[in-house]
Amino acid sequence: MSSLLTEQYADRIREALTDFLPEDEGASGVMRQVMNYSLSVGGKRVRPALTLAFCELCGGDTEKALPFAAAVEYIHTYSLIHDDLPCMDDDDMRRGQPSSHIRFGEANALLGGDALLTRAFGILAAADLPPALIVRAVDALSLYAGADGMIGGQVLDLAGEGKTLSADELKQIDILKTGALIKCACVLGCIAADAPWEQIAAAENFADALGIAFQIQDDILDVTSDSATLGKPVGSDEKNQKNTYVSRLGLARAREEEARYTAMAIEALDIFGDAADSLRAFAGALSGRLS
Amino acid sequence: MSSLLTEQYADRIREALTDFLPEDEGASGVMRQVMNYSLSVGGKRVRPALTLAFCELCGGDTEKALPFAAAVEYIHTYSLIHDDLPCMDDDDMRRGQPSSHIRFGEANALLGGDALLTRAFGILAAADLPPALIVRAVDALSLYAGADGMIGGQVLDLAGEGKTLSADELKQIDILKTGALIKCACVLGCIAADAPWEQIAAAENFADALGIAFQIQDDILDVTSDSATLGKPVGSDEKNQKNTYVSRLGLARAREEEARYTAMAIEALDIFGDAADSLRAFAGALSGRLS
Repeated sequence: MSSLLTEQYADRIREALTDFLPEDEGASGVMRQVMNYSLSVGGKRVRPALTLAFCELCGGDTEKALPFAAAVEYIHTYSLIHDDLPCMDDDDMRRGQPSSHIRFGEANALLGGDALLTRAFGILAAADLPPALIVRAVDALSLYAGADGMIGGQVLDLAGEGKTLSADELKQIDILKTGALIKCACVLGCIAADAPWEQIAAAENFADALGIAFQIQDDILDVTSDSATLGKPVGSDEKNQKNTYVSRLGLARAREEEARYTAMAIEALDIFGDAADSLRAFAGALSGRLS
Repeated sequence: MSSLLTEQYADRIREALTDFLPEDEGASGVMRQVMNYSLSVGGKRVRPALTLAFCELCGGDTEKALPFAAAVEYIHTYSLIHDDLPCMDDDDMRRGQPSSHIRFGEANALLGGDALLTRAFGILAAADLPPALIVRAVDALSLYAGADGMIGGQVLDLAGEGKTLSADELKQIDILKTGALIKCACVLGCIAADAPWEQIAAAENFADALGIAFQIQDDILDVTSDSATLGKPVGSDEKNQKNTYVSRLGLARAREEEARYTAMAIEALDIFGDAADSLRAFAGALSGRLS
């Protein structure tokens, strides 16, 4: 899903992710290595790009929004490290590389995830923005990444393993597990621009739909892709008896649903007019990748 | 180490810790249970009491500092949950109760720790204090709890297992592992009161000395106490081949060192005059407990 949107900001995001790492000395040097390893292994940077895109769309200064963008990617990265741990999904590979706990041992992977999560909020605090906006960003990140958001989704996901869930139950999990942080990325961009509530509401609607489209895409790729492209073993959902859109709806209907949610996401951008074209193209590229 | 200081604030702290839990429904209901279990099992609440004590000492409103106090205890509690996990210290008991992963399973314990850590920053953001002070608190908590602070100490601690460390190396670990969060608790109280830098510096000196005294005390209790009093098996440090002050210095010299650092902590409070008497008594009670 390479797109103009993610390419446009790629260099600045990469730089910001490194800038906010701890010092390369003593104990923090070890953590820097663990944190940097997972931050570096070729993610698509979708979330930070969304933060910058919404900041720009709402008339803000993307340079000042970079810490917000980086903070979201730190949270996303910690969640992948903890997700891969043996007591969670027990995945040895991530993005074509050994998972953090395979590379550094379980204890360091656990602590590296904790360090990324802890640092994310410090990065928000370092933004060159009015304190009142930073406090709103801290509140939003804590909410969307926490027990009422992303972590809540992981809890439901674990609780559903081995059970047969309905498509609606699956959707509820994905709204939290994947959707909450995507929503947070979009909202943080709006907050950085001190956007009015109608724009924030539009960003939320866009993110809700995109988050579900995103997860359906993941489920589809798990059965249609090969492990070289995917960077992890295919078929792991089936192996882990995971409920997926494909297992619930079949491949053809899953594809239809993915297209429907992508269209909803694009529609939510109407109030931004032509300025949102690159975001529309980004959402559209999702479907393109699957065809 | 029951003391007037911790008793004085106990009710308000207990209430605040519960107030900031997520809703009791759905996925967050599960996390609420996991988080509340570890928050409730009878900690001494030393850290939040220090936050409130320093806020009061610096002329601030302790009611408004309660979220800062609760946030520090959330961080402390998450660190205990993750510390007890099999890939870390592998402790089945904590404060006389089954550890979180024994009670709820490893995945929920991991996620419950993540949820406490994530929530801590949201609690800071909810404080009824000027945004500029909240941003300083977020910055401080992220720094002291992160790779350059508490987590850095855990990394050094793990790296030192099975090796023979000098007393100085041990001290460096403790300054980070135990001291950083105690320091953070004191500093957050000062920030809540918008205290001048001399008072913050005094709080830091107090915390540095107290943190080391605290850790020496822990090491001494691991060999002199019984498991009913301690709430966990005694001798676990020796079992895990941990470097402790007792193993390095012997019991008698460890006791001397503990008294020396306690005296340093008390001395750091000089600039506060008589107003700091309850804090002096609190630090003194440390030694009392050991005699």
